[in-house]
Amino acid sequence: MDDRCSLDKPELVWRGREPVASSRSVAEERPVALTFNGSTYAVMMASPADLLDFGIGFCLNEGLVETARDILSIETVDLALGCEVRIWLAEAHAERLAKRRRAMAGPVGCGLCGIESLEQACPPPARVAAPAKFRPGDILRAMGALRPLQRHHQATGAMHAAAFWDGNAIRMVREDVGRHNALDKLAGAIARAGLTTSRGAVLMTSRVSVELVQKAARIGVPLLVAVSAPTSLAIETAERAGLTLIGIARDDGYEIFSHAGRLKFEATEPRAELERLAR
Amino acid sequence: MDDRCSLDKPELVWRGREPVASSRSVAEERPVALTFNGSTYAVMMASPADLLDFGIGFCLNEGLVETARDILSIETVDLALGCEVRIWLAEAHAERLAKRRRAMAGPVGCGLCGIESLEQACPPPARVAAPAKFRPGDILRAMGALRPLQRHHQATGAMHAAAFWDGNAIRMVREDVGRHNALDKLAGAIARAGLTTSRGAVLMTSRVSVELVQKAARIGVPLLVAVSAPTSLAIETAERAGLTLIGIARDDGYEIFSHAGRLKFEATEPRAELERLAR
Repeated sequence: MDDRCSLDKPELVWRGREPVASSRSVAEERPVALTFNGSTYAVMMASPADLLDFGIGFCLNEGLVETARDILSIETVDLALGCEVRIWLAEAHAERLAKRRRAMAGPVGCGLCGIESLEQACPPPARVAAPAKFRPGDILRAMGALRPLQRHHQATGAMHAAAFWDGNAIRMVREDVGRHNALDKLAGAIARAGLTTSRGAVLMTSRVSVELVQKAARIGVPLLVAVSAPTSLAIETAERAGLTLIGIARDDGYEIFSHAGRLKFEATEPRAELERLAR
Repeated sequence: MDDRCSLDKPELVWRGREPVASSRSVAEERPVALTFNGSTYAVMMASPADLLDFGIGFCLNEGLVETARDILSIETVDLALGCEVRIWLAEAHAERLAKRRRAMAGPVGCGLCGIESLEQACPPPARVAAPAKFRPGDILRAMGALRPLQRHHQATGAMHAAAFWDGNAIRMVREDVGRHNALDKLAGAIARAGLTTSRGAVLMTSRVSVELVQKAARIGVPLLVAVSAPTSLAIETAERAGLTLIGIARDDGYEIFSHAGRLKFEATEPRAELERLAR
């Protein structure tokens, strides 16, 4: 695993008195070009770690391939100006990608009118049908267990984490300056490890936008838990996807915005504790 | 000014005991299609307020036009699926935009190899030559004045703000679920009002990525101040742009990452206070 994610930078610290020369470990951000069969599909600003996971997860989350096996080869190249993730797809997938791009290459912009483009921008999310049930206290403990695993964030104070919790333990954590990138990396790592997602959750340290919900549904987890608030469209999309969406996850609890039926409130430990105290 | 930015959503709040049915005001997020002369250039997820500012600021920050006067007309349309910002450019600008897009429309992806794409992704930033000087305490007070002006954030707890401070007072604030959108909206609002930027600052409530530095330099401010940390590439780009970059702005001070020479430390009030105490 590539381990670079922060750089020491000189700075001047001013806290109301004399300025003091110091240095700070800041999150590294580099342009990352994703190329398919030799030409670039997208350039993203990202943390230059776990880029193989990023490439695979991007392909899966964007629907460019159905499974990681559709990727013939993938390699990362470190260049002076940034990083390149070189992906080779089989002829049929490359041809489909080419068609999709040609359809989008009009005289100005993508050639579609605003209404058509808006329809394409919010496709129906993947449906999550997993019947998994969760104990409320387990989710609290999972979020608590994530904090000490955010090693890049501990160094820089400025990274987002996406983690996969299998219902018992956190199996993997990926970090990035961008929350969407962190979740793409996690999707790639899950696919490479061949983990089953239907009884687990994605944990995010960020707010929740619609795109994070779309990606979580595609990963196949029935539950998405985040430290901060969701947007209106994230909630509406989670409802449609059949995904349980939890936000504002703090030490003492959280808020449930969709499909609360997956939580087994009747058996929560805190309630049992409360009853013990009431005796 | 369009005023929608939040929606009430039902939720279940669980804080360790019985779950309680409640509701929360969440940030509204909608797809916004930017169309030029009839076809779409980009679709972004954004807060549906100040979309005229957004359209104009996007054109300026992306370098599609040199001044707001190059935009023949602009209107916003509210559609079922999202919003459309319809922009009409003069023939010469539309033709240049079309050429730029044709050059990018290869058989797969943009047709450029990874190295060429990386070169295009990080163009040299605009140079800020303004000789403005700032008193350290004034910057602290500006950041303090921003907080009560974040009215959408106060409602939702989940919005970023970008503000323009002219060296004396905050002149305008724009908010969005995305920090880049907030800064695009601010750029448009500054251009529409015809404000002079060479003695002022952009204030951001977020972390600082390279793209925020590029936009601030294009807006022409000599100073960018943010509540949270910059990335490595943001610092390097601020150095090249001649921009003073301040981060980790808290109640008691901040950290300066580039071009600290614009700060007049010798005349700070806190130091005078310190000397008074030492007598």
